[in-house]
Amino acid sequence: MQFDSFEVVLVSPRNPLNIGAVARAMANFGFQHLSVVAPYEAHWREAKSAVGAPELLLRARQFSDLPSALASCTFVVGTGTQTHRKPEQPVIALPNLATTLRDKWTPEARLALVFGPEKHGLTREDLSYCNVMVEIPTDPRQPSMNLGQAAAVCLYELTRTPVPPAEPRRAAAADAASGSLDRLALLIEQTMIAADYSPDSMRAANQHDLRILLRKLFLSTLDTRRLLGLFRRILWRLENPGSSKRG
Amino acid sequence: MQFDSFEVVLVSPRNPLNIGAVARAMANFGFQHLSVVAPYEAHWREAKSAVGAPELLLRARQFSDLPSALASCTFVVGTGTQTHRKPEQPVIALPNLATTLRDKWTPEARLALVFGPEKHGLTREDLSYCNVMVEIPTDPRQPSMNLGQAAAVCLYELTRTPVPPAEPRRAAAADAASGSLDRLALLIEQTMIAADYSPDSMRAANQHDLRILLRKLFLSTLDTRRLLGLFRRILWRLENPGSSKRG
Repeated sequence: MQFDSFEVVLVSPRNPLNIGAVARAMANFGFQHLSVVAPYEAHWREAKSAVGAPELLLRARQFSDLPSALASCTFVVGTGTQTHRKPEQPVIALPNLATTLRDKWTPEARLALVFGPEKHGLTREDLSYCNVMVEIPTDPRQPSMNLGQAAAVCLYELTRTPVPPAEPRRAAAADAASGSLDRLALLIEQTMIAADYSPDSMRAANQHDLRILLRKLFLSTLDTRRLLGLFRRILWRLENPGSSKRG
Repeated sequence: MQFDSFEVVLVSPRNPLNIGAVARAMANFGFQHLSVVAPYEAHWREAKSAVGAPELLLRARQFSDLPSALASCTFVVGTGTQTHRKPEQPVIALPNLATTLRDKWTPEARLALVFGPEKHGLTREDLSYCNVMVEIPTDPRQPSMNLGQAAAVCLYELTRTPVPPAEPRRAAAADAASGSLDRLALLIEQTMIAADYSPDSMRAANQHDLRILLRKLFLSTLDTRRLLGLFRRILWRLENPGSSKRG
């Protein structure tokens, strides 16, 4: 199926009607995979038990945090409307989304479209797990969209501009999954600490910057594996300064 | 303003949340003019009194029937999703809407986008007042969209593909307003009756066909005025068979 490689991810959705509306728009436009992150439990149960809830809502997967929900995804698109904050990742206008996805949408790819909570949308931290942010072009006098309507508009845009299937690339060149980038980020951080390069006060900021940096590099699975090997070795040398060369 | 010549028309909307959602999508995408036809009174009051109801909802105009709501409109677009019935007017896919509107969107034009009730959408009779029907391309397994989401998707599409402003045409060539076509249809019908060309059993079907025919002709204001004059004269002659030539 055309959108079988797509995940729709809702971060802490609050209103059961909005959750149902997102699921309905997914069914309308042929999307099957819904994940929710840290939903409000009672509201989540209410949405699932609503009369006429689409099958895909009953099958939705639940995660406690965003990186877990995205672990297997190779390209992550955060969504939002015009706001005053300056996002740290590339921002593309929704009508250009299909062009942006053109080389990312390979047979082995797993793409995610992430929507934030109704009240404030995705946080700066949520966005640090996204490769790009897509902006729905709304009127500056009333920029904030309803969650169900924002999802409908984004999913319509994806069906509107058919993306020609990309050439299968060699497996080695496949984009790294979000989870392996998180493992690499953790290892680099441990190395920085071991090298005394990460004062406590800077730790959170460094983690954040590292997540964004690794996503900007568009590492392949093989690149990521090589870097994991390199940093494992560096970390071992730092932690065992006196020891003789290994292996 | 860009969409100042656009009317959004809701026919008998039922759910106050959907009415609010349509109004919110209009504010998001810069549309100002909302009309409702024969709303369920209690639900309509509830929608208008909701906390945070956009200003354009409070200013919305209310009509008892669709032709009155469309009287001043020069090009009317009915909306729907894939269905089994065969509409009698040209059907265009939503992504082609801007191209279709290109020569209709003149400075003197008044365009309308009409949405049917939640349950069944626009009826065959409602559609007979529309010049074209626009279809949102949805999945055949789940074609029916929520009203608020359908409106969001249609309005997004109109902002997405900016239509270059058409050249102002000579006033004489301006498209006829829906109300003057209704007057012409009534006069032609009276003429048919006077000419014994409309048996009682066919009257409703003839009215319907006449509405659709007149909309297919894309008559100008001047054409319509000429035809009104001609049929007034014919009718007078039919009703006064023995009288001498007038004027």
